[in-house]
Amino acid sequence: MRSRRTLAWGECDPAGIIFYPTYYRWMDAATWAMVAQAGYPAARMREEHFTMPLVDSQCAFKSSPQFGDEVEVRSQISKWGRSSFTVTHDFVMAADGRALARGTESRVWCRYEAGPGSPLKSEALPADLRAALGG
Amino acid sequence: MRSRRTLAWGECDPAGIIFYPTYYRWMDAATWAMVAQAGYPAARMREEHFTMPLVDSQCAFKSSPQFGDEVEVRSQISKWGRSSFTVTHDFVMAADGRALARGTESRVWCRYEAGPGSPLKSEALPADLRAALGG
Amino acid sequence: MRSRRTLAWGECDPAGIIFYPTYYRWMDAATWAMVAQAGYPAARMREEHFTMPLVDSQCAFKSSPQFGDEVEVRSQISKWGRSSFTVTHDFVMAADGRALARGTESRVWCRYEAGPGSPLKSEALPADLRAALGG
Amino acid sequence: MRSRRTLAWGECDPAGIIFYPTYYRWMDAATWAMVAQAGYPAARMREEHFTMPLVDSQCAFKSSPQFGDEVEVRSQISKWGRSSFTVTHDFVMAADGRALARGTESRVWCRYEAGPGSPLKSEALPADLRAALGG
Repeated sequence: MRSRRTLAWGECDPAGIIFYPTYYRWMDAATWAMVAQAGYPAARMREEHFTMPLVDSQCAFKSSPQFGDEVEVRSQISKWGRSSFTVTHDFVMAADGRALARGTESRVWCRYEAGPGSPLKSEALPADLRAALGG
Repeated sequence: MRSRRTLAWGECDPAGIIFYPTYYRWMDAATWAMVAQAGYPAARMREEHFTMPLVDSQCAFKSSPQFGDEVEVRSQISKWGRSSFTVTHDFVMAADGRALARGTESRVWCRYEAGPGSPLKSEALPADLRAALGG
Repeated sequence: MRSRRTLAWGECDPAGIIFYPTYYRWMDAATWAMVAQAGYPAARMREEHFTMPLVDSQCAFKSSPQFGDEVEVRSQISKWGRSSFTVTHDFVMAADGRALARGTESRVWCRYEAGPGSPLKSEALPADLRAALGG
Repeated sequence: MRSRRTLAWGECDPAGIIFYPTYYRWMDAATWAMVAQAGYPAARMREEHFTMPLVDSQCAFKSSPQFGDEVEVRSQISKWGRSSFTVTHDFVMAADGRALARGTESRVWCRYEAGPGSPLKSEALPADLRAALGG
């Protein structure tokens, strides 16, 4: 899935470039959007008590966008487990494709036993979700 | 209540000064801390299904702290209603008391009918909370 | 100017609704986007040492979007001074136009005397900027 | 260096637990605080045009704090290069020491050639900084 972000004033630091945790905010939003597009939008996740907590995340930084730059986020599932999955996100300058950063998120597909805040139990990834995401 | 914040790198903007929504993050945290100190900490708020949504917020900016500056937040209830209340927050440089900003939050004391996400109902402010906060 | 935001997981609070300082982040981004569209994009602002600090901001909250909701931001200049201006932002549910919040930002058009971090001096709003924004 | 954070309402997500990029915000702040304590506070970094961009960051999540929990951040330099260094941050519940997360940041000690925004050049880590941090 490809999405675009214009780097906002408030997502930058005093050096005038992206404040690095912003990449993680963007990864999180891209993963939720990807899952939404694959048939599991926010409302359904909420109603069916699904969530997808992280086990690990990581990001390598190559070059930094400045305030106002348009960034393309290229997200894909790079590893499938029974209930776990890894999403790899490539960040490139929309204008010329210059590589900015590459990050990964390892997540587990879970269900709350009784709504947000209650204990989580991992579940096998739904077959339709896997299929929609090429898994 | 007085609290202190050291302005973080990631709370600044490319001008090297505080990104203004940071003041609102600090106001929100100061109000929760004030209510906690008055006998309603996070765990109790959660268990008894209390929350305090906003009706209005406002902030006037006089001078801007830079990255690394220590800021004192002086918070007090400036207006009491039956279930509503207004918190006024003064932000000053901890070093010399120079005024930075003054903001207000108008909130309503509410209870979720059935846990987070369920409909809210306003309630009279608890007498012990008012007493602890000088109301 | 109209823009759209899908309320992200990380822009919500434990009540599952928008964390209120998010509105101020969105207002800030909308104002920079409006100014960019009117001929003053980030790169130009940076090169010509322009910025637009705030004097005051305010927001009234009517109804709260949940995670995943699409919100339309309707921004316009509601007051013009020589160097100051006020932007009013209306937030509505994109799906049905339901009013969510209305906020204002009072800003001053300024120039850094010598790049970011140096003292600011207010300047008359550029005529082409005013014209592009209907002022 | 040990520091403490009370997990704020606005640092949580709709699941009522820490929104994971918050850990990265905390790591960034802890590293700046550690460097400040070692003789390089914000004002000096700014005046002498030092900064410390990231090459890589990573975090593994074991258990999640809830709104209101007090978290201790234990930060130390875990690897020294000539100009590069790695900071390891352990997050534990302040109440009982329960492990929450462990993250690392790989950074490079740099100087702006001509103030924020200008090109960066890596420099050998100052001897007094290394000494103060046990390197």
